Amino acid sequence: MRLKIEFEPIGRRGEFPQGITLWESACNLGLALQTPCGGQGKCGRCIVKIAQGEVSPPTPADYRFLSAEQIAQGYRLACQAKPLSDCRVYIPPESLSIAQRLQLEGQEIPAKPEPAISTFNLTLTPPTLDDLRSDAERVIQSLKISHGVEASVDFAVLQELPERLRSQGWQLKAVVRQGEIIALLPPEAAPLGLAVDLGTTKIAAFLLDLESGRTLANRGLMNPQIPYGEDVISRITYAIQKPGAAAELQKVVVEAINRAAEEMCAEVNAHPSHIVEAVIVGNTAMHHLFLGLPVSQLGYAPYVPAVQGALEVKARELGLRMASGAVLYMPPLIAGYVGSDHVAALLAAGFDEIEGPALLLDIGTNTEICLAYRNGQPGKSPLTSLSCASGPAFEGAHITHGMRASPGAIESFSLEDDEVKFQTIGGLPPIGLCGSGILDVVAQLRKAGVIDSSGRMGSHRKLRKTDGQLCFVIAERGEGLPPIVFTQKDVREIQLAKGAIRAGIEVLLRERGLSPAELQEVVLAGAFGTYLRPESALEIGMLPKLPLERFRQVGNAAGAGAKAMLISTTMRAKAEKLTRQVEYIELAAVPDFAEIFAKAILL
Amino acid sequence: MRLKIEFEPIGRRGEFPQGITLWESACNLGLALQTPCGGQGKCGRCIVKIAQGEVSPPTPADYRFLSAEQIAQGYRLACQAKPLSDCRVYIPPESLSIAQRLQLEGQEIPAKPEPAISTFNLTLTPPTLDDLRSDAERVIQSLKISHGVEASVDFAVLQELPERLRSQGWQLKAVVRQGEIIALLPPEAAPLGLAVDLGTTKIAAFLLDLESGRTLANRGLMNPQIPYGEDVISRITYAIQKPGAAAELQKVVVEAINRAAEEMCAEVNAHPSHIVEAVIVGNTAMHHLFLGLPVSQLGYAPYVPAVQGALEVKARELGLRMASGAVLYMPPLIAGYVGSDHVAALLAAGFDEIEGPALLLDIGTNTEICLAYRNGQPGKSPLTSLSCASGPAFEGAHITHGMRASPGAIESFSLEDDEVKFQTIGGLPPIGLCGSGILDVVAQLRKAGVIDSSGRMGSHRKLRKTDGQLCFVIAERGEGLPPIVFTQKDVREIQLAKGAIRAGIEVLLRERGLSPAELQEVVLAGAFGTYLRPESALEIGMLPKLPLERFRQVGNAAGAGAKAMLISTTMRAKAEKLTRQVEYIELAAVPDFAEIFAKAILL
Ligand code: FES
Ligand code: FES
Repeated sequence: MRLKIEFEPIGRRGEFPQGITLWESACNLGLALQTPCGGQGKCGRCIVKIAQGEVSPPTPADYRFLSAEQIAQGYRLACQAKPLSDCRVYIPPESLSIAQRLQLEGQEIPAKPEPAISTFNLTLTPPTLDDLRSDAERVIQSLKISHGVEASVDFAVLQELPERLRSQGWQLKAVVRQGEIIALLPPEAAPLGLAVDLGTTKIAAFLLDLESGRTLANRGLMNPQIPYGEDVISRITYAIQKPGAAAELQKVVVEAINRAAEEMCAEVNAHPSHIVEAVIVGNTAMHHLFLGLPVSQLGYAPYVPAVQGALEVKARELGLRMASGAVLYMPPLIAGYVGSDHVAALLAAGFDEIEGPALLLDIGTNTEICLAYRNGQPGKSPLTSLSCASGPAFEGAHITHGMRASPGAIESFSLEDDEVKFQTIGGLPPIGLCGSGILDVVAQLRKAGVIDSSGRMGSHRKLRKTDGQLCFVIAERGEGLPPIVFTQKDVREIQLAKGAIRAGIEVLLRERGLSPAELQEVVLAGAFGTYLRPESALEIGMLPKLPLERFRQVGNAAGAGAKAMLISTTMRAKAEKLTRQVEYIELAAVPDFAEIFAKAILL
Repeated sequence: MRLKIEFEPIGRRGEFPQGITLWESACNLGLALQTPCGGQGKCGRCIVKIAQGEVSPPTPADYRFLSAEQIAQGYRLACQAKPLSDCRVYIPPESLSIAQRLQLEGQEIPAKPEPAISTFNLTLTPPTLDDLRSDAERVIQSLKISHGVEASVDFAVLQELPERLRSQGWQLKAVVRQGEIIALLPPEAAPLGLAVDLGTTKIAAFLLDLESGRTLANRGLMNPQIPYGEDVISRITYAIQKPGAAAELQKVVVEAINRAAEEMCAEVNAHPSHIVEAVIVGNTAMHHLFLGLPVSQLGYAPYVPAVQGALEVKARELGLRMASGAVLYMPPLIAGYVGSDHVAALLAAGFDEIEGPALLLDIGTNTEICLAYRNGQPGKSPLTSLSCASGPAFEGAHITHGMRASPGAIESFSLEDDEVKFQTIGGLPPIGLCGSGILDVVAQLRKAGVIDSSGRMGSHRKLRKTDGQLCFVIAERGEGLPPIVFTQKDVREIQLAKGAIRAGIEVLLRERGLSPAELQEVVLAGAFGTYLRPESALEIGMLPKLPLERFRQVGNAAGAGAKAMLISTTMRAKAEKLTRQVEYIELAAVPDFAEIFAKAILL
């Protein structure tokens, strides 16, 4: 007898003989779970939930990694459970491999479609000696007579109008936005939208159908400004060092976005001229550089942006190749170091309404943290945000064998029974450690007592001394390659990074008179926030000790928020409203920050 | 005893001994009158009006060229009249030399200033750690608190805002237009405006103070598109012959306007970034080429423009160097061959209200004619316009010794008592004939019977045969130079030109059931319309025979209308309204036009 197994939320299913594990059947369907111990029940990462059907009874491994309550709720280790009937199995995102999670992102419909544009199909009569109306008046009057809509014609649309009318045989789809015709499409074309999360390191771009709200394609690419400076500060420094440098930074990003848009359009048999609206979110420096706004004043206190409110700009003014009259909506910023990506993440996580107390963290070189607390003292803002300089350690920078999350990176690590286990992205031979792996290493070494609460390495059979400092050997590699190690200095780097984040949390909680235990929810957004294991973050004290179920990992929330704002004007209004509700705390103005930080770096 | 003589409307005055003529005293003051006969009382061109004071009694020459009624009203020949007391003397524009008239143009205040912009001086407090508002929010809030004005910031203004705030010490003049800050000026700067009459041949540019309405400077220049084609059709042909050609035509004109603006600003110690609004009028082809609108459909029937209504475009979108957010207002067009210069001329001549029947003619390569008739048949449009292809003969083209109105051109000509008299621009030795001179020659030759009504040259002592055709010798020149002549073919060219204009007038009058005698006023606009002698135009039948006082020569009415629209939104509304009142007649659709034209070419 073959059993039907269906995996949610991915919606993949297949039939399998009895006796194989859920892990094996998932592998068979191309679903990569987190399995650093290789299915031996020794890492506890392959957790799934049985939503329907019957599986084999819990094993000792299940009891080791899961609470009785979790087991009662249907949680099991996938490498242990064998189906006994047809099953529906839910895979929590944190049990999926990074590559798998990246693949799954950006396919949901992020909001009810309420686009800023409307479309109207028109069939015109060509001009004659008895009907000498100009092309523009012809379109305007047809729109009014056929659809009761009054609109002017955008100037750039006007420039292409005569040619388009004649080449399309006087048939067209007019795209109207706020009383203006901003694009003329072939009658059968769908109006497209582009949402972009413009990160310092990575750019995530999404192509959507504005009327259905569906994501048609997506692209992840590196920010081409990286060669001009790895982080925000070095990029600002570059931008202001000589005339034309800022324009150069702007140009490379615009070109990268243009290329991504072109590729995505090609993928769905559309043309960039069908893109009639765009939403781009990013931190304040990326926002300013992209818009050609000066950044010098972001480089020194009090770090004021040129503008904070939402902007609407014709996409052509920035060199974006889209419909002639396409509009770029830039959501509002919060402060010099809290940008519209944070706003978008708050929106995607529901922080415009959440009662709280709840935290949202977007961990990166700068970590933005927001505390929502709507039932607090009267007269206080419902939202409080700050930014802390957590540095690039979790992106692999300044770590001896650190690397970005790409194939061959150790993405998870365990040290159970004194035995080192790890899993790499794509299952390739290990070449380094990415953020989630680094976090696991520090947590596991701390848990096993290899390092103490001050971060000092003690003794362990895997500890070696190289170049005068201790290091923990994670993986030996053959062929004369040096082993992959984690050094004492690497531990210090992580302490600084996690200390900055934890100190930021403490400042926020103190500001609103809360204790950590009062937090109802902690939302982890962004790439690293999604890939990290909350247990590890708790273990090293980066996050306050709370029951695991209070943590929510939401993936690229900034991208999801950008998509929601792209297809919905209601979501834009919500974003603008929530921005006005945010009180910003400048850490430079917190007098005892140094003391809080000193305490926060302890493991 | 010395007498005080003051000349109006120029307002120049001086003291002179008794016994000299008004002509001599005008010369002495640098005022060039039309005096082709050299002050001999033989041409009748030096007419002035004594507004105050006493002069010598009329001479036989006065009685020859002036009616008893005119003499009673104070009209005299300036070369005959000698002041007997202090005098105030009015010089009609047609008695001034062309160069003098050009100089005088563009100094009046064309309308009550009601600009589209308002200005507000702001003094801001710089940001601190306790006041982290962005630069834009700081400006927006200050504007609201200090002046009660709500406005957003134009995107390009935003790009320069941080630098400007800091370099101007947080003091500025905000220029607000329709709820948007479009420029930041130094606190003491006046907001400037640019009005341009963009002709196929000539460009007239004016710099105005938008708040006082005063014209600060003006520039006349040749259209730099001339090398790409002398007339509209050859320019359209050039524009569509290869990719990039239209953009090239656009670029040279934009650059010419930028240069003119820069020069005018330098002249008044201002900077082009103080120009916050511009109005440009021109024929439909110039309008389209300037805006980068396609012109191919203007080249063939039914000659429909891409757009007809008024447009507002950010000046930067066209490459105009002005304030970052400066707006360009392009007044509406009437048809493929009746542009916004015609609209501006109608506005300047008061055709938005005039009862009529009245005609306005703007004579050029294409001559636009409008008939105003507000008391006519019910259901008819108050205004009817058409365009006729009168050709470039009156601009000197296709005429053997034709030339543009520049120094050395014969600008007026008389053949009294069989004696040839003429005057050149600047009083230089003659090198050719400009439009008004050409018209005079044909009129005088016809009057003297040298040519008959069919245009055929008969006999006269000054007629010669050269290259097989008859020609009239206007001026012998020494040093081996050939004489300046007017040939039989030249007469034919002028017949075609004047025939086209007269036929257009006839079509308009017939359309509204009017006879020529019912016309209350004939307004002659544009350069040639201003310089020509109405008597000559009547003599050759270019214009219907009407009492001379029904003709009004208004100079560059298109430029005056552009200036009026620049400084007054009321004038823009009037222009848009009058444009909607115009019924356009396409001559190509008039079935018996050929017959009307055949009759109209007779002299
Ligand atoms: S794979 Fe299941 S516990 Fe490690
Ligand atoms: S100059 Fe006076 S009549 Fe000729």
